[in-house]
Amino acid sequence: MKNQRSRQAGAGDRERRLTLSDDLIWGIHPVFEALQEEPERIAELILVKEKRGTKWEEIIESARLHGIKLSFVSTLKLAGENSSQIRHQGIVARMSHTPLLPFAELVEKFRKMVSRGERPRLLACDTLQDPHNLGAIIRSAHASGVAGVVITREKSAPLGGIAAKSSAGAISHIDICQVTNLATALQQLKDAGAWVFGAVKESESQSLYQTDLCLPACIVVGGEGKGIRPLVRKQCDLLIAIPMIGRLDSLNSSVAAAVIMFEAMRQNMAKK
Amino acid sequence: MKNQRSRQAGAGDRERRLTLSDDLIWGIHPVFEALQEEPERIAELILVKEKRGTKWEEIIESARLHGIKLSFVSTLKLAGENSSQIRHQGIVARMSHTPLLPFAELVEKFRKMVSRGERPRLLACDTLQDPHNLGAIIRSAHASGVAGVVITREKSAPLGGIAAKSSAGAISHIDICQVTNLATALQQLKDAGAWVFGAVKESESQSLYQTDLCLPACIVVGGEGKGIRPLVRKQCDLLIAIPMIGRLDSLNSSVAAAVIMFEAMRQNMAKK
Repeated sequence: MKNQRSRQAGAGDRERRLTLSDDLIWGIHPVFEALQEEPERIAELILVKEKRGTKWEEIIESARLHGIKLSFVSTLKLAGENSSQIRHQGIVARMSHTPLLPFAELVEKFRKMVSRGERPRLLACDTLQDPHNLGAIIRSAHASGVAGVVITREKSAPLGGIAAKSSAGAISHIDICQVTNLATALQQLKDAGAWVFGAVKESESQSLYQTDLCLPACIVVGGEGKGIRPLVRKQCDLLIAIPMIGRLDSLNSSVAAAVIMFEAMRQNMAKK
Repeated sequence: MKNQRSRQAGAGDRERRLTLSDDLIWGIHPVFEALQEEPERIAELILVKEKRGTKWEEIIESARLHGIKLSFVSTLKLAGENSSQIRHQGIVARMSHTPLLPFAELVEKFRKMVSRGERPRLLACDTLQDPHNLGAIIRSAHASGVAGVVITREKSAPLGGIAAKSSAGAISHIDICQVTNLATALQQLKDAGAWVFGAVKESESQSLYQTDLCLPACIVVGGEGKGIRPLVRKQCDLLIAIPMIGRLDSLNSSVAAAVIMFEAMRQNMAKK
C-alpha cells in the first residue's frame, strides 16, 4: 500500500511530451470550452502540477465530475511542426477520435432491448493496453453483432490512431463507453438484465462450448497477460474458457475475444 | 504478361540490405555446407547476380532442387556490429528458426491419420505477408488442434523473429511446411483424403456454421486484403465464410482464421 501511494505521488514528477496533432486542445479557455461542450470526447486532461490560473480549479472539478482521466506532470512539452509558437498554459486535453457514449445511456439502451425481448450482447475490456488488440477486438465485436463496447478509463489503450486503424473503421460504427469502475458498471448492467460472462483460462471455468450464450449478455475480457482483475472477476456470473488442445495455455487476447463473440453470435443465430 | 516479365527481370536490379543476425550464413563454403546438411532450414538464398565462383552453379542447382527461394540482387550489404569485417562473397543464406517438415512427410502423416479413421485438420496460408498475423495464426492453429500448417514459399512472412514471437512458441510445437506451389500441394492433400475448405468473403460462399467440418480437412486462408489466389481457390472443394453482422465486410486475417479453426474444433469435439 505504501509503495502504491508513493508511486502515485511520484507520477506527478514525470515529464510529459506530446506531439502536436489534431487530437490535442491546449490553453485554459479552449480546454474549458471543450469541457462544457463535449466532455464525452475528452480522453485525458494533462496538467502541469504547479500551475494555477483562472478557471483552473473549475476545470479540475468539472473533469472529475465527468470522470475524465487527470494526469498531473512536472513538465509538459509539445513537439512537432510549429510547436515552438504554442503556449499551452500548462494544460492540454487529449481528445478521442470517437465520440464516446455516456455509460448511463448504454445501460438504458440495453435495458430497453431486454424489455423488448431481445438478447443484446456487450463486450467489456478490462485494462486492455495494446491498441492493436483493442482495435481488432472492436472490429470483431461490430462484425459479430455486439451492441456496445465498455472499456476501462485507466490502463486502457487510447482509442485514437492505432486502435482506430486496427478497427478498420468499426470504431465509428459501434457504441463505445469509458468507465472508471468496471466492477460497478457490470453491477449496473446486471441490474439492467445482463448476464456477465468472464473469459478466463481453462482451469476453474466452464467450456465456452457448453455455455448457453443465448441471453442478454456482457462478455468480459482481460488485459494481455494479466487477465480480468479480481474485483471485476467477482462480478461475473459465470467464468468461461475456450478449450485448448496444444501445449500453450493462452491465445492472443484479440483472438480469444473474437472466438467467444462469434460463438455467441453462432448460438444466437441458431436459436432465432 | 509483358509487365510481369519485365518486373521479374527488374527484380535482379535491386539492392538488398540485411542486418547481421544469427539467422544468416554467408560465404560460399558455409552456404554450401548448410545446403548439404540442413536444406530444410534455409528460408532464402540471396545471391549477387554477376558473381561466379567455385560451387556457384552447384549451389544454385541444389537450392532449386530443394525448392529454396532464390533472390538475385545487384548489391548485397550486411549492416550491424562487426559487419565491416565480413566478406560474404556475394552469397547469404537466411535460415529459418524453425526446422521445416518436408511437405511429402506431412502428406504421409495425414494419409496415415485418415487411414486410422481420424479427422486431422491442416491449415494452409496462401501468401500471408504480415508476420504478426502469421505468428498469431500458428498459435491459434496449435491451440485448436490443427496438425500442421502449410505456407507458401513466395510472398509469405518469414518464420523468424516477429512470427516466432507472435506465435508465443507454438511455432516449435506444430509441423510447418513451405511449398512452392500451393495449388499442387492441395491436390496432393486431396489425394491423401483431405477436404479443402477455402475461407472467403460472404458472397458466393456457404456459412461456416452450416458447414460440416467433421472431416479430414485442409482450411485455406488468404493473404491480407487479397484473399486466396484464383488457382488456389480452384482447388477448394467448398468456399466458406464467417457470417458478419455489422457494416464491415472483413475481419483481421488472424481473427478470421481463428474463428474458423475453433469452429472446426468445436464441431469435432461435439462429434467425438
